[in-house]
Amino acid sequence: MDFELTSRQRDLQMKTREFIANKIIPMESDERQGAHGPEESLRAELVDLARQAGLLTPHASIDMGGLGLSHVDKAIVFEEAGYSRLGPTALNIHAPDEGNIHLMEVVATREQKERWLRPQVQGHIRSCFAMTEPDGAGADPSMLATTAVRDGDDYIINGKKWFITGAHGASYVIIMAKLEDGSATMFLSDMDVPGIEIVRLMDAMDTCFTGGHAVMQFNNLRVPASQVLGELGKGFRYAQVRLAPARLTHCMRWLGQARRAHDIATQYARTREAFGKPLGKHEGVGFMLADNDMDLHTARMHIWHTAAVLDRGETGNFESSRAKVVCSEAQWRVVDRCVQILGGQGVTGETELMRIFTDMRSFRIYDGPSEVHRWSMARKILDGKAPTP
Amino acid sequence: MDFELTSRQRDLQMKTREFIANKIIPMESDERQGAHGPEESLRAELVDLARQAGLLTPHASIDMGGLGLSHVDKAIVFEEAGYSRLGPTALNIHAPDEGNIHLMEVVATREQKERWLRPQVQGHIRSCFAMTEPDGAGADPSMLATTAVRDGDDYIINGKKWFITGAHGASYVIIMAKLEDGSATMFLSDMDVPGIEIVRLMDAMDTCFTGGHAVMQFNNLRVPASQVLGELGKGFRYAQVRLAPARLTHCMRWLGQARRAHDIATQYARTREAFGKPLGKHEGVGFMLADNDMDLHTARMHIWHTAAVLDRGETGNFESSRAKVVCSEAQWRVVDRCVQILGGQGVTGETELMRIFTDMRSFRIYDGPSEVHRWSMARKILDGKAPTP
Amino acid sequence: MDFELTSRQRDLQMKTREFIANKIIPMESDERQGAHGPEESLRAELVDLARQAGLLTPHASIDMGGLGLSHVDKAIVFEEAGYSRLGPTALNIHAPDEGNIHLMEVVATREQKERWLRPQVQGHIRSCFAMTEPDGAGADPSMLATTAVRDGDDYIINGKKWFITGAHGASYVIIMAKLEDGSATMFLSDMDVPGIEIVRLMDAMDTCFTGGHAVMQFNNLRVPASQVLGELGKGFRYAQVRLAPARLTHCMRWLGQARRAHDIATQYARTREAFGKPLGKHEGVGFMLADNDMDLHTARMHIWHTAAVLDRGETGNFESSRAKVVCSEAQWRVVDRCVQILGGQGVTGETELMRIFTDMRSFRIYDGPSEVHRWSMARKILDGKAPTP
Amino acid sequence: MDFELTSRQRDLQMKTREFIANKIIPMESDERQGAHGPEESLRAELVDLARQAGLLTPHASIDMGGLGLSHVDKAIVFEEAGYSRLGPTALNIHAPDEGNIHLMEVVATREQKERWLRPQVQGHIRSCFAMTEPDGAGADPSMLATTAVRDGDDYIINGKKWFITGAHGASYVIIMAKLEDGSATMFLSDMDVPGIEIVRLMDAMDTCFTGGHAVMQFNNLRVPASQVLGELGKGFRYAQVRLAPARLTHCMRWLGQARRAHDIATQYARTREAFGKPLGKHEGVGFMLADNDMDLHTARMHIWHTAAVLDRGETGNFESSRAKVVCSEAQWRVVDRCVQILGGQGVTGETELMRIFTDMRSFRIYDGPSEVHRWSMARKILDGKAPTP
Repeated sequence: MDFELTSRQRDLQMKTREFIANKIIPMESDERQGAHGPEESLRAELVDLARQAGLLTPHASIDMGGLGLSHVDKAIVFEEAGYSRLGPTALNIHAPDEGNIHLMEVVATREQKERWLRPQVQGHIRSCFAMTEPDGAGADPSMLATTAVRDGDDYIINGKKWFITGAHGASYVIIMAKLEDGSATMFLSDMDVPGIEIVRLMDAMDTCFTGGHAVMQFNNLRVPASQVLGELGKGFRYAQVRLAPARLTHCMRWLGQARRAHDIATQYARTREAFGKPLGKHEGVGFMLADNDMDLHTARMHIWHTAAVLDRGETGNFESSRAKVVCSEAQWRVVDRCVQILGGQGVTGETELMRIFTDMRSFRIYDGPSEVHRWSMARKILDGKAPTP
Repeated sequence: MDFELTSRQRDLQMKTREFIANKIIPMESDERQGAHGPEESLRAELVDLARQAGLLTPHASIDMGGLGLSHVDKAIVFEEAGYSRLGPTALNIHAPDEGNIHLMEVVATREQKERWLRPQVQGHIRSCFAMTEPDGAGADPSMLATTAVRDGDDYIINGKKWFITGAHGASYVIIMAKLEDGSATMFLSDMDVPGIEIVRLMDAMDTCFTGGHAVMQFNNLRVPASQVLGELGKGFRYAQVRLAPARLTHCMRWLGQARRAHDIATQYARTREAFGKPLGKHEGVGFMLADNDMDLHTARMHIWHTAAVLDRGETGNFESSRAKVVCSEAQWRVVDRCVQILGGQGVTGETELMRIFTDMRSFRIYDGPSEVHRWSMARKILDGKAPTP
Repeated sequence: MDFELTSRQRDLQMKTREFIANKIIPMESDERQGAHGPEESLRAELVDLARQAGLLTPHASIDMGGLGLSHVDKAIVFEEAGYSRLGPTALNIHAPDEGNIHLMEVVATREQKERWLRPQVQGHIRSCFAMTEPDGAGADPSMLATTAVRDGDDYIINGKKWFITGAHGASYVIIMAKLEDGSATMFLSDMDVPGIEIVRLMDAMDTCFTGGHAVMQFNNLRVPASQVLGELGKGFRYAQVRLAPARLTHCMRWLGQARRAHDIATQYARTREAFGKPLGKHEGVGFMLADNDMDLHTARMHIWHTAAVLDRGETGNFESSRAKVVCSEAQWRVVDRCVQILGGQGVTGETELMRIFTDMRSFRIYDGPSEVHRWSMARKILDGKAPTP
Repeated sequence: MDFELTSRQRDLQMKTREFIANKIIPMESDERQGAHGPEESLRAELVDLARQAGLLTPHASIDMGGLGLSHVDKAIVFEEAGYSRLGPTALNIHAPDEGNIHLMEVVATREQKERWLRPQVQGHIRSCFAMTEPDGAGADPSMLATTAVRDGDDYIINGKKWFITGAHGASYVIIMAKLEDGSATMFLSDMDVPGIEIVRLMDAMDTCFTGGHAVMQFNNLRVPASQVLGELGKGFRYAQVRLAPARLTHCMRWLGQARRAHDIATQYARTREAFGKPLGKHEGVGFMLADNDMDLHTARMHIWHTAAVLDRGETGNFESSRAKVVCSEAQWRVVDRCVQILGGQGVTGETELMRIFTDMRSFRIYDGPSEVHRWSMARKILDGKAPTP
């Protein structure tokens, strides 16, 4: 057992930390950010900075142009990138691209990879993942209503999706649809084709995702059979391939944001005076800082442990569910406490904190709300299928 | 002991409830609302509706044109008004006007009342309350830095204030400033005079307050001695006169918002299906609804009890501190649970819920953060000065 | 709406408070208390003291020899009695007798009352309530397995019960059993008859209940039809008649214990020095005292409100479930904080606190665990049957 | 980074697990356990079993007769031992002996080791650690009042100590006393000498510590200078040497108890039926099991991480404080939830659970209450001295 970073990990950590501090944080006040995330021109500049720093798309395989990071490597690097809300965009490790890249690496054909994955790894194009639907498919995948019907060499796809992060501006989409036999399959499609309509952008509490969240409609979208992703009928299995690590990378990036919040609050508690002494000397505030430290370390340990499980080649479904609940709730407590410490400044745009707060609330919901994970964990515990020491 | 409403209270409750349901909720989607609250034209329309309904400024004295509501009466009516985020604006009972009206009733001279209070009660003008300062005066009043220096029959005021809710668009301001002897005094001033500068509007998580929150500068603001509010040196005492009930009216209005959130979530839990049954039939969700009900009733009981204490003529400082902490935390838990129940829809603008969530976070901070109230309560408990049964 | 006590209530409150302070607290160190509560000789002495003070069985009807207290009256008096763990025993308002007395008043025949209720109200005999069974009847009444079979003018009862509080030393028992048609009925029986066996006393965390908790066996217990309590088949309905107020009187008595704990902790925090100042001046401790005060007041408000609902003649099932969850959890938090404040002295017998802690844990379980009440509340909320303002 | 056990660790884990399951758990119902822990005859039998299994005093150095376990090794073995409340007694790794053995290894002279440590490692004698005092020395060491005055070649010790775990029946004691220059020093003394009086045994919530907790008096206790432990004036430094790992071994042993509680509750939730399905299928219960799993894993990760820090030779003061707070609170939540799941059976002696509950409450207090650790952590965070990633 060992909690030490390798020297390569330590180097990557420091390199990323400095990159974020020196290149990315200064851009946080750039005005090209609105209700639906950074604009494309800003994104391109950020990606360029990461490219110059040798940190672009580090989780992609070396073959595809990445650094071939392991899950544990990612835990180190993504936390650092997450320290700025613009960091994941710069490194091209934001959701949903990060997870899509992982899925494409594992499942896509050589041709599919060359067509979509390689330019994506190079930061030139973005993607989206169209699974969630208005009537319930999301937390409960059995409710999937979008259909794909075979028509000669093609499939005809119809259905409505929403909460499709990054759809606006994406070059391609991964679509989850139901075949006539009821099984779920994934399809790849360019976005700029007939039959794909972005109905509207949703007004959302978080504003950190490039392209925001969209409602999409597939109207007789025609997709050639060559654009099936992986095998027919394995849609849900691939969703798990994508989700277990994708959940964990959420934890990593948000850990960076929570640490940032804690650093802002700590600095404030050191310098702000109230009732005759620095705020942090009041136990009511100091205890919150201590609780933050506990929660941050708890989150980090769950992430590292789960990453190591994934690196051993296990599916890590239980561990990633658990890490997702623990991290999303612990990191939320951290950010909420930081807001409280800053008082009025915590609920206004005087610091980055307010945006961290409003960005982070959805983390307890996306990729499975806490309740679904608790339910799934309970089932496994009762069935004797939870990991034991 | 008795928890029954009088028939007048019941009538007012029902009248307000119907007014909100029929006249105000339909206006929630009006686009004249932005980052800094409802625009003046929208506010004027809302006020007009309340005037027609006979519900305008109900807490003002009958002499000034109100309904002369007691604190308990207010508890009933304000909760109903708060059910819509536009309700308090319509009834002219939003912060800071509601508290300013109360303070003016108690302290202002007849002339001051005729000049500022009467048109305010009629809904024609708004006011703001300039106490909080960037370097700390707020939670800790001893740090007050704004000065008022006697100059003939006038006072010359200099200083910087922030988080001044509603300053933008207000007709008059109540200013807290320090005299040369170090004591604090309140002054009244029109807003459209030389020496008052609105430096900027602050970007804030809440967007429900008309006029938003401003940074203000007083640059040699000249105020005649006739515009001193109350007696010299009694600034902090008057702040308490204003704050104990003002804290409680916050609790009342936000209780309405929390109840609204709970109603949205309950309706969603009744109709949304997941894993084969309505969401609410899952204990994980049902228990959240039960907890909501407990928290809402807890908040209501603290409000009613404290209102009754104030109606007996007591200062109710301990009780209002306690109610403020209990309500702000209980109501926040309610709204947070509701977001979780709605999932993706809770963190997007699909319902009113998202705005309730972002509006409400500051309630745990404004008018004294929870920590300051806990500290103050602890001191009184240790000194044997807390109320006992 | 009014939160004032009547002068009679105030008198009863003060009289009880003084009685507990002067007569009962001095007896807390009496050694005639063991793992299964006060011994009979101690109980008799305590009852005698209450009789002399005119406070014995105050909730019983005047006709039966009590003071005919309303539910709100009880809220006042029982909290005071609960201030000492021996108080409820002294006043003859402990569980299960308190609830049994209420049930007998409502349901028993004149003959049954004269035979069992009158001597019980006089403090001469005790009773027990045999409902809970090892295989589940308790939280889930549908699992009732004890049977009563008609045999001429008698019923023959067979079954096993456990957690039967006060059975050891009781003079009579109320038995819940299932008739041949599956309906539940209550029966009265003397305890010293053939067919009733106390199998063993259970080792329990709480040690405040006279007679402790027993496992009982009914072996062909013969009960004349005249000893049916109320009507045949109405067993569950009567259980509700008993439970809604019985739950609430638990809340009242434990509120007294929680207040006692808070007073012990407050006194300790005033006088104990640590790190250069009284413990209570550390915010970490002071905040706990403030939270205690909030929780105590919350509990009291729920109790008072529910008592007023019951006094209006409503069943108050929702309100008493809610009050039970709120009180049992709030009061537990209070006692747990007090233990933390006292440190080592909180977990040893240096004060009454340790016993309050171990006595109180079961309150979150008895008379329906929190989870069953939350479930029941959720169902009513979803069905639109929860009380609304 | 690596979370795998070595094969030796895995072997030790399995060996200990089987030993506890097969040899120790069957003895849990042995009646030679009372309010002050296992009797000496029971202890001797348990130690004998561990000796035969090759598991006695495994943390002691090989030189002294132990297995020379590293901190991480201990994390593995002690958790397993803690699975039964008798396990730590059997393995001779209970408090305070476990910590005393560690301290003696580091600080004692060869002669002192041969006289006291060797027989202790062999399980023949026990020890106690006399630091805490009635007037406050404990959480706040500056309040130390026991004095040691030089008298020729001896020291004369006077003072009062309490909460001295295991004093009754111990063969030797480590005494913390203040020299005339105000510095703190540790002394060793046999227990059966004039000048040491065990005033009384304290009634305590926990009953798992052999010898219970005593109040001790030193009346002109004469100790030769050769029995000074380590160097003069370094008492507090040695207390830290002892405390940082001792805190962590508490975490390890209690983790075993918490896991046991979780296993009892899981088994109950699998088999007990309520409302038509196994208890665990109710989300209200299943979610508690999921939360337990999260808390157990969180505790384990903090323990493992801190053990690895100590194995690197760092003092790990911050990490062990943090682990102590996190573990004591997380494990307490686990045990409290388990009680709730078992309902009536959780608060009675039907399972081991009740004793785990009453034993564990003091863990949030002993070796520094949570509040002191939070305060200490906050100070370091504010001073920039907390570990960072």
